[in-house]
Amino acid sequence: MLAELITIGDEILIGQIIDSNSAWMATELNKIGIKVKQITSVSDDEQHILEALKNAQERVDIIIMTGGLGPTKDDITKKTLAQYFGTKDFVFHQPSYEIIERIFKKYKSPMLEVNRQQAMVPANCEVLLNEQGTAPGMLFRKENKVFISMPGVPYEMMNLMTEKVIPLLQSEFNLPAIYHQTILTAGVGESFLAEQIKDIEDALPPTIKLAYLPKLGSVRLRLSTVEHATDALKAEVQKYTDLIIDRIPDCWVAKEDIPIEKVILNLMEEKHLTLSVAESCTGGYISQLITQHPGCSAVFAGGGIVYSYEMKSRLLGVNPETLATFGAVSEETIMEMISGALKNFETDYAIAVSGIAGPDGGTAEKPVGTVWIAVANQHQTIAKKFSFGNKRQQNIERSAMAALNLLFRLLKEFDA
Amino acid sequence: MLAELITIGDEILIGQIIDSNSAWMATELNKIGIKVKQITSVSDDEQHILEALKNAQERVDIIIMTGGLGPTKDDITKKTLAQYFGTKDFVFHQPSYEIIERIFKKYKSPMLEVNRQQAMVPANCEVLLNEQGTAPGMLFRKENKVFISMPGVPYEMMNLMTEKVIPLLQSEFNLPAIYHQTILTAGVGESFLAEQIKDIEDALPPTIKLAYLPKLGSVRLRLSTVEHATDALKAEVQKYTDLIIDRIPDCWVAKEDIPIEKVILNLMEEKHLTLSVAESCTGGYISQLITQHPGCSAVFAGGGIVYSYEMKSRLLGVNPETLATFGAVSEETIMEMISGALKNFETDYAIAVSGIAGPDGGTAEKPVGTVWIAVANQHQTIAKKFSFGNKRQQNIERSAMAALNLLFRLLKEFDA
Repeated sequence: MLAELITIGDEILIGQIIDSNSAWMATELNKIGIKVKQITSVSDDEQHILEALKNAQERVDIIIMTGGLGPTKDDITKKTLAQYFGTKDFVFHQPSYEIIERIFKKYKSPMLEVNRQQAMVPANCEVLLNEQGTAPGMLFRKENKVFISMPGVPYEMMNLMTEKVIPLLQSEFNLPAIYHQTILTAGVGESFLAEQIKDIEDALPPTIKLAYLPKLGSVRLRLSTVEHATDALKAEVQKYTDLIIDRIPDCWVAKEDIPIEKVILNLMEEKHLTLSVAESCTGGYISQLITQHPGCSAVFAGGGIVYSYEMKSRLLGVNPETLATFGAVSEETIMEMISGALKNFETDYAIAVSGIAGPDGGTAEKPVGTVWIAVANQHQTIAKKFSFGNKRQQNIERSAMAALNLLFRLLKEFDA
Repeated sequence: MLAELITIGDEILIGQIIDSNSAWMATELNKIGIKVKQITSVSDDEQHILEALKNAQERVDIIIMTGGLGPTKDDITKKTLAQYFGTKDFVFHQPSYEIIERIFKKYKSPMLEVNRQQAMVPANCEVLLNEQGTAPGMLFRKENKVFISMPGVPYEMMNLMTEKVIPLLQSEFNLPAIYHQTILTAGVGESFLAEQIKDIEDALPPTIKLAYLPKLGSVRLRLSTVEHATDALKAEVQKYTDLIIDRIPDCWVAKEDIPIEKVILNLMEEKHLTLSVAESCTGGYISQLITQHPGCSAVFAGGGIVYSYEMKSRLLGVNPETLATFGAVSEETIMEMISGALKNFETDYAIAVSGIAGPDGGTAEKPVGTVWIAVANQHQTIAKKFSFGNKRQQNIERSAMAALNLLFRLLKEFDA
C-alpha cells in the first residue's frame, strides 16, 4: 500500500513553519505497513490543489491531506474538494457543530458565522469527528482510492490519525498486523553498530527486516515483521532482539522506543532514587530534556547552571585555585563539580558537564569540542573526556547524550 | 519568479528526519523575491525523480534539489540527472576532488573509490564548488529553466545557497533588490497586533507589504518592498516602521530579525550587565535558550534549576514556611525566589519562574498553566501571574517567552 501526504497552505511554502506533521504521519503509517511514496506541499490555490490531487491519485492508493481548514481559509479548500469529488452540495454536520460550540464556550469567545460554517461539509464525504478542534476531518473515495483531509494543527491531526485514520486504514485495506521491536542504543554511531551485528543482520529471515534510525545522537534499531505477525514470528523477532542485545552490552539502553532520559527517569522512579545536575557548557539543555517529561519531579531535584567560575565555586564549592590552575575544562574541576553537586544538592545521583562548546574559547591544547563529563553516586564516580566537533549546538546536544549514557551505565551497575 | 524545492531520499519519506532544509531555503528565496510554488519529497528512485523533475519544469522557473548525493547514493541521482539533461558523459572535477582529499586528510580517514567518484559530474553541468563537504553542487539548464542540485547536509546546503546559489539567481534573473525591515514583538498575539495597527496597515502604499510571522511565542512583523528598493522607497519603509513602533510601545522589542534572548544579551553586554535565573517549571528551558548563543558568558552567570522545594530553599533561601503556607506557585514564593537569585547569584538582573506545567498538579484554585514570573534588578522587582493552557511543552515555552519579555521591559526602563 502506497500513500502520499499533501500539505495545503502557504505557511510551509514561505518557510514560516517546518513540516513536522508529515514526518510524524510517515512514521505512523510505516508502522502499519503503509509506505509514503511522496510528500507534497502546495498553496491554498484551487488549481494547484486539484493538480496535486490528480497527480497523487495516479501514484498511490491513499492520499492524506492536512491544512487549509482554518476558519478563514477552509472555504476554498472545502469547495475544491467538493469539486474534485463531484458534488456541489454541502451539508450541516450536527456533531461537529456541537464540538465547535463547546470549544467557544470553554474559551468564552464569541462565535461568528465563519465558525458555524466550519460544520458544513461536502455532501459526499464521511466525517471523521475532530474532538479537539473546530475543523472536521473528512474522508472521500474515488476510483478505489481513499482521500483523507485533516486540519494542520499538530495535536488535532495526531488525535485524528491515532483515533480514526489508522484504525480505519487497517480495517479497510486488511493490512497485515506488523510487529515492531525497538532497541534504543546510545554512545555509538550507525556504522559501528552495523559492524558489531553484521552476522546477526545477515542471518535474519526474509520475514524480518532491520532498520537503523538515528535520532538526536542515539541510534534506535527496529526489527519489524514484513508480513502478518503470528505468535511464531513474534517469537522469532524476540530471538533476534536478544541476540543483538547480547552482542552490544555496553550500548543498548532499552527495548522500548522512548528517549534515554525517560528510560533513566523510569528506572530511578522505580528505585526511589533522586538526581541533580551541574551544567556548564550544556547550559540547561540536559535539565530541559529531563523536565519536558511529566512526573519527572519524582526523581529530578534540579541543580545548577554553573556557567561562570563564580557559580561553580558558589553552588558546587569548586576551589577557585583549581579553576585558576587547571581551568574549568579539566579532570580536576569536573571531579570537584560532581562531588559538590552530590553533596550540596543531596541527591543519590548527579551529572556534571564542563566543556568548550565554541565557536570561541578553544586553545591548541583544549580545542573547541573538548568536554569533561562526570556522573556519580555515593559509591562511584566516572569522569570521562570527550572530543566532539566544532559546531556549538551539536557539541551541546552530543554532550547531553554522552552524559545521559554514562549515567545510565552507572545506574545499571548499582541499581538495576 | 517561481521555484520548486525537491528533496530526494527516503529519510524524509519514512519520517526519520524532518524537512527543515526546505523551510530555510523557502525563507531565503522569499527574501530575494522568489516565491516557492511547491515542495516535493521523493524517493531516490530513477523513475520517481524523472517524473518529479518533469512536473516541476512545467510549473516553475527554478528547480532546487537537495539530497541523494551521499557517497553510497549519489550514483543513481547523478545518473538520473545526466539522463534528464541529455548526457551520458561524466567528467572528473579536479577542484572538487581536492576538497574531498582535504576532508579525508583532516579526519584521517582512508579514502575509498566511492569517495573519489564523488568528484565525477555529468559533463553538461556547471559545478557549484562545495567547500564544506564531499558532494559538489551542480547547475543544469533546460528550456530556460534553471535546475540546481545540492547535498542535503544542512550546513553544506546553507553554505552553497548563501555563497553560490542566491548570488547566481539574483544576477541571472535580474531580480529586484527587495528591502526588508523586521520588527520583533513579544507578549501579544497576531490578531491583537493586527487590531492595533490596522489603520497603518491600510495606509501602506502598494509598493510595501506587511507580513505577520509568528514564531515560538512571539510575532515578527516584516515590511518588504514589492519592487526594486530605491532610497526613497527604503525611507518610506522606515517611515512606516516608526509609525508601527510608536503605536506598540509595550510590545515591540527590536528592529532586527533575531530572537528576544539575543536582543537581551546584546543590550546587557553593551552595558556590562550580568544575568542569572531561578527556573522551576521551565526546568532549564530559559537557560538553554540563552546559552545556545555564542558569547553569552559575557552576560549570563548561570543560576538554579530549583525543581524541588528543597532546592528552592537551598539555592535561593526560600523560607520553607512560605512554601508550606502559600505553595511553590504563589506571589510570596516567587518574590523570595527572585530576591534570593539576585542576592545569592550576585548578578545585576535575575529571572524567576514557578508554575504548574502539567499535565498533573493542577487544582481548582491553581489550574495547570498557572505560572508566576518575576524579574528584578537592585531597584525594582516585577512579579506577574499568567494563566496559560493545559499543554506541558507549550506552558514551558510560553513561560520562557513571557519571562524574557518582562526582563526586556525592565531593562528598557533602567538601562536602555
